[in-house]
Amino acid sequence: MRGDGRKPNETRVITIERDYIKHAEGSVLITVGDTKVICTVTVEDKVPPFLRNSGTGWITAEYGMLPRSTGTRNQRESTRGKVGGRTMEIQRLIGRALRAVVDLKALGEKTLWLDCDVIQADGGTRTASITGAFVALADALHKHMKKGSLSSLPITDFLAATSVGIVNGQPVLDLNYPEDSAAAVDMNIVMTGGGKFVELQGTGEESSFSMDELQAMIGLGQQGVNSLIEKQKAVLGEDIVNLIAANAKTVQHT
Amino acid sequence: MRGDGRKPNETRVITIERDYIKHAEGSVLITVGDTKVICTVTVEDKVPPFLRNSGTGWITAEYGMLPRSTGTRNQRESTRGKVGGRTMEIQRLIGRALRAVVDLKALGEKTLWLDCDVIQADGGTRTASITGAFVALADALHKHMKKGSLSSLPITDFLAATSVGIVNGQPVLDLNYPEDSAAAVDMNIVMTGGGKFVELQGTGEESSFSMDELQAMIGLGQQGVNSLIEKQKAVLGEDIVNLIAANAKTVQHT
Amino acid sequence: MRGDGRKPNETRVITIERDYIKHAEGSVLITVGDTKVICTVTVEDKVPPFLRNSGTGWITAEYGMLPRSTGTRNQRESTRGKVGGRTMEIQRLIGRALRAVVDLKALGEKTLWLDCDVIQADGGTRTASITGAFVALADALHKHMKKGSLSSLPITDFLAATSVGIVNGQPVLDLNYPEDSAAAVDMNIVMTGGGKFVELQGTGEESSFSMDELQAMIGLGQQGVNSLIEKQKAVLGEDIVNLIAANAKTVQHT
Amino acid sequence: MRGDGRKPNETRVITIERDYIKHAEGSVLITVGDTKVICTVTVEDKVPPFLRNSGTGWITAEYGMLPRSTGTRNQRESTRGKVGGRTMEIQRLIGRALRAVVDLKALGEKTLWLDCDVIQADGGTRTASITGAFVALADALHKHMKKGSLSSLPITDFLAATSVGIVNGQPVLDLNYPEDSAAAVDMNIVMTGGGKFVELQGTGEESSFSMDELQAMIGLGQQGVNSLIEKQKAVLGEDIVNLIAANAKTVQHT
Amino acid sequence: MRGDGRKPNETRVITIERDYIKHAEGSVLITVGDTKVICTVTVEDKVPPFLRNSGTGWITAEYGMLPRSTGTRNQRESTRGKVGGRTMEIQRLIGRALRAVVDLKALGEKTLWLDCDVIQADGGTRTASITGAFVALADALHKHMKKGSLSSLPITDFLAATSVGIVNGQPVLDLNYPEDSAAAVDMNIVMTGGGKFVELQGTGEESSFSMDELQAMIGLGQQGVNSLIEKQKAVLGEDIVNLIAANAKTVQHT
Amino acid sequence: MRGDGRKPNETRVITIERDYIKHAEGSVLITVGDTKVICTVTVEDKVPPFLRNSGTGWITAEYGMLPRSTGTRNQRESTRGKVGGRTMEIQRLIGRALRAVVDLKALGEKTLWLDCDVIQADGGTRTASITGAFVALADALHKHMKKGSLSSLPITDFLAATSVGIVNGQPVLDLNYPEDSAAAVDMNIVMTGGGKFVELQGTGEESSFSMDELQAMIGLGQQGVNSLIEKQKAVLGEDIVNLIAANAKTVQHT
Repeated sequence: MRGDGRKPNETRVITIERDYIKHAEGSVLITVGDTKVICTVTVEDKVPPFLRNSGTGWITAEYGMLPRSTGTRNQRESTRGKVGGRTMEIQRLIGRALRAVVDLKALGEKTLWLDCDVIQADGGTRTASITGAFVALADALHKHMKKGSLSSLPITDFLAATSVGIVNGQPVLDLNYPEDSAAAVDMNIVMTGGGKFVELQGTGEESSFSMDELQAMIGLGQQGVNSLIEKQKAVLGEDIVNLIAANAKTVQHT
Repeated sequence: MRGDGRKPNETRVITIERDYIKHAEGSVLITVGDTKVICTVTVEDKVPPFLRNSGTGWITAEYGMLPRSTGTRNQRESTRGKVGGRTMEIQRLIGRALRAVVDLKALGEKTLWLDCDVIQADGGTRTASITGAFVALADALHKHMKKGSLSSLPITDFLAATSVGIVNGQPVLDLNYPEDSAAAVDMNIVMTGGGKFVELQGTGEESSFSMDELQAMIGLGQQGVNSLIEKQKAVLGEDIVNLIAANAKTVQHT
Repeated sequence: MRGDGRKPNETRVITIERDYIKHAEGSVLITVGDTKVICTVTVEDKVPPFLRNSGTGWITAEYGMLPRSTGTRNQRESTRGKVGGRTMEIQRLIGRALRAVVDLKALGEKTLWLDCDVIQADGGTRTASITGAFVALADALHKHMKKGSLSSLPITDFLAATSVGIVNGQPVLDLNYPEDSAAAVDMNIVMTGGGKFVELQGTGEESSFSMDELQAMIGLGQQGVNSLIEKQKAVLGEDIVNLIAANAKTVQHT
Repeated sequence: MRGDGRKPNETRVITIERDYIKHAEGSVLITVGDTKVICTVTVEDKVPPFLRNSGTGWITAEYGMLPRSTGTRNQRESTRGKVGGRTMEIQRLIGRALRAVVDLKALGEKTLWLDCDVIQADGGTRTASITGAFVALADALHKHMKKGSLSSLPITDFLAATSVGIVNGQPVLDLNYPEDSAAAVDMNIVMTGGGKFVELQGTGEESSFSMDELQAMIGLGQQGVNSLIEKQKAVLGEDIVNLIAANAKTVQHT
Repeated sequence: MRGDGRKPNETRVITIERDYIKHAEGSVLITVGDTKVICTVTVEDKVPPFLRNSGTGWITAEYGMLPRSTGTRNQRESTRGKVGGRTMEIQRLIGRALRAVVDLKALGEKTLWLDCDVIQADGGTRTASITGAFVALADALHKHMKKGSLSSLPITDFLAATSVGIVNGQPVLDLNYPEDSAAAVDMNIVMTGGGKFVELQGTGEESSFSMDELQAMIGLGQQGVNSLIEKQKAVLGEDIVNLIAANAKTVQHT
Repeated sequence: MRGDGRKPNETRVITIERDYIKHAEGSVLITVGDTKVICTVTVEDKVPPFLRNSGTGWITAEYGMLPRSTGTRNQRESTRGKVGGRTMEIQRLIGRALRAVVDLKALGEKTLWLDCDVIQADGGTRTASITGAFVALADALHKHMKKGSLSSLPITDFLAATSVGIVNGQPVLDLNYPEDSAAAVDMNIVMTGGGKFVELQGTGEESSFSMDELQAMIGLGQQGVNSLIEKQKAVLGEDIVNLIAANAKTVQHT
């Protein structure tokens, strides 16, 4: 039994509220237990210099935390005048993850800006950001498809992320902040609807872990991602789910 | 009749949700029409260098906008590596305004950090921040009083803020973003429960205004602030309202 | 009687020396009592991106203080690596104020850079900057008119600024630094030759002020601005004064 | 057969030159094929604020690339005024990795600064940095032990790192730059002498990978790390190797 | 004959106005032809960390140019967020030069801040800064001596600086901006009242110079510095001149 | 006899290893005693804005020190977020020096980036950088000539640099770090193969020097530079030496 009464392989309660910010092309408020993240997607009609005239699009992510999203107040990165290492690592991860399930050729010379802003933090903010950003991105691209600026939905599969770890010697799924602080090993797993890995980042926090522990964590991660993707499907609705499923099938056959 | 159907002297719908962020000593989500701001208050047991050993506390405010709180995406100030002029102007205003109704001597050597983060913007974000921050600050200080770290509630009066302006030649109250963009004059008014001015900032936007227009705007501002303070009172509840009212009386008599 | 022997409604001695810096299109040294500011105007033949191909010009202001313009040495903002909040607030104010009396359409796609550098400070540096910058700007634009790069003088009215406040319970005009430090209320007023307001920024410095005090301060401000504009006229000479007066009449009739 | 003639499970030629920089407590030049990194270790007699009076030490790493270590010149991060995301990610990884095999309690209130500077890059710079930094760190701590400022060698096990990936559908070990650029999956593996994982970072580069591919890559990584640790042992010599081996045994039994 | 009618060995007209800024302990406006620099000296009762508890003082200089001191407007270094290479070079030079004639032991644990701000530039701003800063520094230290916070005047000799160069094949003294732009060689010379060199910085501007040219330039520089020191003496007056002269004699004999 | 046994006019042992970094167009490792600097040259097919369409090329230098190239660790300039004054001074010197012997017109619209990175420091890093950069630059331009992108070798003469100083009252050549720290005067001399000066920077380190001392130092510097140029010629080989010698003759005759 875990600190908050969950079983080792049990995720926290997850909600995803679509169209949370009226201005953005796609936006959600995702809550994973007490972790709350606003994810918005902005579609811009240009690409970074290295992609100009390539016919190919790009996805870039930015991540932030409100100063008081955490137990003690964090100084703003704008006030400090620079983006910290942890933030950079997370926003690079989010961008890479989403690019793995978007057909950037089919997107054309557009940039998708994913903004993930944590308004309340209780562990797993980066994985919640990925899971939420996927839904916001599907919404944004679907709107563009409906209004004709995209001829198809350029999403090749579902994508979600969760964390696993070894806490008190036991592999557990979806760590909250007290568990994350106490974990000997911490692993973030990003997977597709088709069950393939996109990112796997395991860290012995000043410690190390065995092959058996690795296997156990991967197993839990697969369960967690599957349930998150079910949630995404329920929230997005049949139309979008069918379009993505069709793309995923095509991709597998090529 | 205004663009959104309001009368010239009519505010937008206002809601204030207390205890919005679980970690902060005081926190609200204030919505003024489509403008939504999270205000949190953090109490820190130290003061800036210029106040050390003075027995006096301090209030400092920071303000931010999520990149997609606006119609087109704004680059993050953390990414740009510096806080812009508009942000600085606003956070200085918020801090000054709240300091006018807090007895910093009675607060003792503590710093109150007010964080106002706009998650959706539709005009009037700085005045919504002040109005919301007042409630979060009252909550935070009341909690400290209840747990004994303050012997009284060091708030000397209510405080709220609104905007007024001249749009299409007509003085109007509580401008939304389309009105703000079209306004010939724009004025922010911060007032106390006792009807006194704390800040008055009127700007002819590349234009100018007459004494008559000034008087009309001030009149509307007084109405607007009064209704905001009624809202604050309804939300804060009798206990806190009575404590502040008692302080306000004492202050007037001295 | 005030600390320096002035009456409540009396300004300090004002001098404006034209053509103070040989390189600039327009430049003055303005002294208001012991406050001394060098104002220069540079005319650049391009505009910021948001105005390109609009046929419209722009005015942008920068403000600085020499490190030892003040009683204790201030660290340079270049050394600190960023422009502070107070500086940003002031330069935004100066730019906004001057844009109110320049016909940016008639200016065409030019940018006017106003640089206001305080070499000695004794209160009222921002209002002295506005008053001085107006003269430098008139000179710069008049030179451009004379050499044919402007077909008319695109200045629609005179403009000056002063500060008023409540010191020791008494409304006073044109505060010096000791008064400014002691003031319960501090207000900056920017007005046109036609007697209209361009900016009105009143601040209860951790305090508040009544409607009566507001009216008294505005009355003093009007007197102060009028005498400053008389000074500007005397310094600029008949030719330029007549051109601006003619423009001001036309504007009032439209 | 790979582009440079290696077999899939073959590492590049590795050399480690100790005492490369005369000033540093420990320093090596590590070459892995054409990748060359200077690793130095500096021992400082103080710790970051969060560890003061804890009796515990710290390890922090910094990573840099000379501008022309790469095929095209990279702008210096000092000139750009900030450390990029990739650099931050790498230096956080190096620090975390080394902390896993140093007994920070036994180190006491000292900070070890690891500086890894790439003078020539051909893929695998971060893993070469970790492998080289381990040797420099062992040297630096051994010197401190010999001169009496440490009572024992606070290293609990050997540590090395390598990269693996899927290139042209085939799992390969120790990717050079052309392979890294072409890889569909790229994984960095940090392991101890005892065969446990410290870090595992696998990335489908805008792609994804299956469980089978994951297993194959992990197998190759284990081989690679083993041969790197053999190299470290050969270079460090019997004395230091025996001290670390003894510590590693103790750790395993506790 | 030179462009402005001077002979090769003729300096421009020099004026030094003492007590130019009322707040500073020492301040001058120095004009060398059309070059005008405000030099202020601030005495601070602390020293940089590397001198704490050494009983020794320090001198540090900062240099700036107003944006429109030059023919075309320069962007402010505060706005650019960093101090440029040229500025750093100059302020390091000014600080080094003045430290050569101040007895830092006798000064005690004080820091002298020299601020040299160019308000109008026409070549030779760095040498004018040194020459002017010497006078401001003598004034500041003399005031401290008179009020008893220094027991003697810790200045060991006079100090002034000038520029020389090769223009159109001819060695000339005290280059103005057009000459400086056209010079094949440019040399700054800082010398003491006793005729010794403190700094000698000769630069073939994308060119080179012979031993004969070097000798000719040094000869001119000696003449120029001598006449500048005569000017300093005339301006400072007998009291201060005698104190410095006495110190200079003592130094020569030890 | 000096601390390391050298005679006053004796340089340290010098080695120059060409083609040290495989990616760069030209690169050397230069060692002067225990000072080691990697110099690389990158040829870029564009020029800074002020030279566009001028048909003229440019040379720009950057200089860095690895954090542990020195006795105590230096914080990285990338981490500090800005390039320090000493670095700027040095890289401006290196750039200026090399531009004096390259025919920028003959180079055409190309920029040569000289990167000088000190991996081990023991005094004289800036002069070693200049001496080494010359060889790397000759190599880079010779390669471009051989492959046809330059029709001739646009180098007009040899160039090397050394330091001289007054240590313990005696003029000495090529100061190492302990000598440099103890020197009363420190002078850097950059000269051409034809014996002309390019830069001469003499600094009395909080001290001053006489004309006799100046003459003695210049004499030593000439000897030092001559022996460095002999070394450069030996390393570069007959082909390149003859090309440069031919250019130098032509230049002297014009």
